[in-house]
Amino acid sequence: MSNEPLFLDKALASFDALWSPRVLTRVNDYDVRVAKVRGEHIWHVHDDTDEFFLVLDGELRISLREPAGERTVVLPRGAVFTVPRGTEHKPYAPSGAELLLFEPSGTLSVGDRHEEIPGHVDATTGHPLGS
Amino acid sequence: MSNEPLFLDKALASFDALWSPRVLTRVNDYDVRVAKVRGEHIWHVHDDTDEFFLVLDGELRISLREPAGERTVVLPRGAVFTVPRGTEHKPYAPSGAELLLFEPSGTLSVGDRHEEIPGHVDATTGHPLGS
Repeated sequence: MSNEPLFLDKALASFDALWSPRVLTRVNDYDVRVAKVRGEHIWHVHDDTDEFFLVLDGELRISLREPAGERTVVLPRGAVFTVPRGTEHKPYAPSGAELLLFEPSGTLSVGDRHEEIPGHVDATTGHPLGS
Repeated sequence: MSNEPLFLDKALASFDALWSPRVLTRVNDYDVRVAKVRGEHIWHVHDDTDEFFLVLDGELRISLREPAGERTVVLPRGAVFTVPRGTEHKPYAPSGAELLLFEPSGTLSVGDRHEEIPGHVDATTGHPLGS
């Protein structure tokens, strides 16, 4: 883990891959990850962990399947949202977005249960910055 | 915990107190907090947890007492830094800053060990938003 400051803009400029989070730093046994996204992710569930999203740029939408039905939250730049554990969700970003995520290290980007993974979605626990 | 999106700018506009973090949302047993700061905090240590800072606006400086000596990291807007557990540190912001923090719920803003707390520093585990 870096013991020097890191800069979100430099971190985001260091990679191009979509739906493929990079681990920016760690906080105890949690990762701070950054991701670039565009288009659709997949329906998936994290059974044992909440997942935090901060939109750094662009607009993210997250569809949620809740007991009361399905809804979509719209997250412009500067919005935050926590998807509760156990809630099936599908992030998507028609015109693209840059994200900061907090979640336990080892959390798989496609969750514990998910629909078929298309080629444009990276199933990862996060790549090191600079990879 | 809100199950609606929250907005950093609205959250920050909802309070004026300095060095007095508000809990924006929770992620499992962690808090996402926001804070407004200006001037000096105090030397303190979190014995059992790392502490994550993201500078949303302004400039934060954090002095660190490390085995090799004392140093200060300078964090402009968009910079992130994790203070490792056990490292004595003192945040300060001569011209002010707005911060996002990520740390375990219940973490005291002045740590487990600290110098005398002046009147302008709030010793808190974070106040609810809107309080």
